[in-house]
Amino acid sequence: MSQKNFNEVVSHMKNYGFVFQGSEIYGGLANTWDFAPLGVELKNNIKNAWWKRFITEQKENVGLQSAILMNPSVWVASGHVGGFSDPLMDCRKCKTRYRADNLIEEVSHGEVNPAGWSNEEMETYIREHEIACPGCGARDFTPIRQFNLMFKTFQGVTEDAKNEIYLRPETAQGIFVNFRNVQRAMRKKLPFGIGQIGKSFRNEITPGNFIFRTREFEQMELEFFCKPGTDLEWFDYYCKTCVKFLEDLGLTSDRLRLRAHDPEELAHYSNGTSDIEFYFGDPIGWGELWGIADRTDFDLKAHQDHSKQSLEYFDPETNEKYLPYVIEPSVGVERLILAVMSQALEDEKISDTDTRLVLRLKPCLAPYKAAVLPLSKKLSAQANEIFEGLCREFPVTYDEAQSIGKRYRRQDAIGTPFCVTVDFDTEKDGCVTIRERDSMEQVRVPVTQLASWIGERCRFE
Amino acid sequence: MSQKNFNEVVSHMKNYGFVFQGSEIYGGLANTWDFAPLGVELKNNIKNAWWKRFITEQKENVGLQSAILMNPSVWVASGHVGGFSDPLMDCRKCKTRYRADNLIEEVSHGEVNPAGWSNEEMETYIREHEIACPGCGARDFTPIRQFNLMFKTFQGVTEDAKNEIYLRPETAQGIFVNFRNVQRAMRKKLPFGIGQIGKSFRNEITPGNFIFRTREFEQMELEFFCKPGTDLEWFDYYCKTCVKFLEDLGLTSDRLRLRAHDPEELAHYSNGTSDIEFYFGDPIGWGELWGIADRTDFDLKAHQDHSKQSLEYFDPETNEKYLPYVIEPSVGVERLILAVMSQALEDEKISDTDTRLVLRLKPCLAPYKAAVLPLSKKLSAQANEIFEGLCREFPVTYDEAQSIGKRYRRQDAIGTPFCVTVDFDTEKDGCVTIRERDSMEQVRVPVTQLASWIGERCRFE
Repeated sequence: MSQKNFNEVVSHMKNYGFVFQGSEIYGGLANTWDFAPLGVELKNNIKNAWWKRFITEQKENVGLQSAILMNPSVWVASGHVGGFSDPLMDCRKCKTRYRADNLIEEVSHGEVNPAGWSNEEMETYIREHEIACPGCGARDFTPIRQFNLMFKTFQGVTEDAKNEIYLRPETAQGIFVNFRNVQRAMRKKLPFGIGQIGKSFRNEITPGNFIFRTREFEQMELEFFCKPGTDLEWFDYYCKTCVKFLEDLGLTSDRLRLRAHDPEELAHYSNGTSDIEFYFGDPIGWGELWGIADRTDFDLKAHQDHSKQSLEYFDPETNEKYLPYVIEPSVGVERLILAVMSQALEDEKISDTDTRLVLRLKPCLAPYKAAVLPLSKKLSAQANEIFEGLCREFPVTYDEAQSIGKRYRRQDAIGTPFCVTVDFDTEKDGCVTIRERDSMEQVRVPVTQLASWIGERCRFE
Repeated sequence: MSQKNFNEVVSHMKNYGFVFQGSEIYGGLANTWDFAPLGVELKNNIKNAWWKRFITEQKENVGLQSAILMNPSVWVASGHVGGFSDPLMDCRKCKTRYRADNLIEEVSHGEVNPAGWSNEEMETYIREHEIACPGCGARDFTPIRQFNLMFKTFQGVTEDAKNEIYLRPETAQGIFVNFRNVQRAMRKKLPFGIGQIGKSFRNEITPGNFIFRTREFEQMELEFFCKPGTDLEWFDYYCKTCVKFLEDLGLTSDRLRLRAHDPEELAHYSNGTSDIEFYFGDPIGWGELWGIADRTDFDLKAHQDHSKQSLEYFDPETNEKYLPYVIEPSVGVERLILAVMSQALEDEKISDTDTRLVLRLKPCLAPYKAAVLPLSKKLSAQANEIFEGLCREFPVTYDEAQSIGKRYRRQDAIGTPFCVTVDFDTEKDGCVTIRERDSMEQVRVPVTQLASWIGERCRFE
């Protein structure tokens, strides 16, 4: 049994119908990817699992879907207009463009973390350490300038500053600006959370590694509001809840670690921030998967100040008014897809001469829960009837081409947990053979119990 | 029993936690809306029902999620760069801006349909019929100019034409450009369909009517590819399938009608187009809900010509190569939400002196499937245990404030189909009382059967 490296996982996703290059017939558009039929099912399964665990099963929490286009004042208040930027510089000789912070990190092999450094500090470091352009070897960079990462567009007829708006760079602010509305309409008392799944956009200069970092991506963010003083408890609770969730999606503890931010890395307003990192395989290695931050009242306070609307909470237990503190677990769907795919894809030796490629996705995440495979084309009518019954319950595929062995292997490679074989006995005994993906064991099950037999094994809990 | 008009439906959605104004604390952003906790659940239920019916249950069909940002050549090929525009003109006196086609339609009380007219034809009509500005009465308009409806942005560091890209104005083109990739990766034979749910953006000059027409909206589009000559059959099939779907979501046939496009309205390439219209209540009246079009090979041909990539299908049955024809059913999620809300909201007279407000959503669409209501706060521990069991299965709410009658009414107004009352007998007999929203009838059910009792009544089929 051997797991695959990152590049093998990427090829597998491209070849088996998980991800296509965006706009491929036109030569693509840099760093855009389309989720192909199997990828979109996997993506929906991950989003549904998150929603179930973080919204439906948490009595305190509710969902939200705010607009991608927001009043630009939101991004002034949040600090994105002023501060959400990358430090860029160009090599004067070969014209390659770099992110100064990334270059410092790379050249120091990760030992120096320039998060929070000013342009001057980075320029000094680069000069003093005589850092050269990795492309041409020259030591002649332009000064660093800050480049804002928000995509800009214009709403209305004229393209002037008055009509300038942004594509949201995160979903979180859509939650903060609705804090008061949600609390009132849903009659919520602290503590309670508001969660959202949706697209965000960042005009990254150096995106890359397939879907690890893309300009357009989908976030799953929860903002959990609580009474100041109880925040560290809830921070701890959500760190554990997020790790547990990842384990329930099949990620193993040897590939997960929780890394607390160093004091110098920690935002000034934060009472604590941790990243859950995952081992993505070579050559990426460990990478950030999930950020969990205790943001105190930083965001609500900023919006209260800028909007001139009180966002204070009246606590009926103490008769006090105060701004809640907030715990924010924030994860990107695409990166989570990469993690579960990296974890699941394996070459398995099944005899001295034979191996198989198997995608050991948790059944709840598998794009198809079952494949209906008639042993012979003569059995299609029966097999189709079984397909018709199952597809009312969950996604199923159907295949009657090639040998049964080849069809099993195809389903192994796309993660289908159960193959349902319709054979010549089926008409007589009303049973089908279920072949389980991981153990390759077979069991005979009555057709009348088939849907519930499979269904209960594919639940996310 | 009386249904509500459009404005009453809108207030209900705002007051009860379905929809909030976007960026409200900053005075909003014109025509943006946020889906509040109940609205996002309703929206997800509608999207899941569509996906089940049009993807999972259709053996031929598969899903896709293409990127919002695409190579700009896509929009040249599709005709959106050249032709996706509104004819705008201003009143020279009061400076109000109009869409010329809308003005003609309004002034003629819908009897003239200027779809497909040139600017000159519209200007002539306005002059000859002496149409006046509805705002100030002047008859002095600027010439009509075409305004492109695509939102423009820039990918990369510089804001020059080379980096100009668009937010997609429809999800359909993301499917067309992936036709060959999907067909190959999924080994599909004709006929088959590719469906997608996702956000689209149109820089409408005259959006409005709440969420009826918004600049940012979510589409559910299916492109069904078939052999030329079989297209009208499939067109007919999908017209019927869409109407059936709407009826299964609770829209009644007296509020639905299928309207075939007139010859002069029909796009030159189309073999037939019909709109399913819904009666939204006064003052909107009948409005377009779902467009179903036989688009022949217009789109694939355009992309084949522009991309210089063959998009032909090799038919293994006839050994021919040809471009498939396509049937496109396309519906907006927000408008469908408005339709089901308009249909469901009623004032019901329940006695000579009493009425109740009830939202008769189909149980599969209801934001909460059940509300757990302890008859007294002394029963919270038991009620919470019941809540914990149910929330693993479907969304549930919990309420222990106020009288039981008031709590029933609150649940009626948000569409919760089942209220689960925990009373002092529950501990003894292990049963709870389920009160059904529409009939207000009560039935006693064992706690052990509660989840399956409710679950099977909330399925979409």
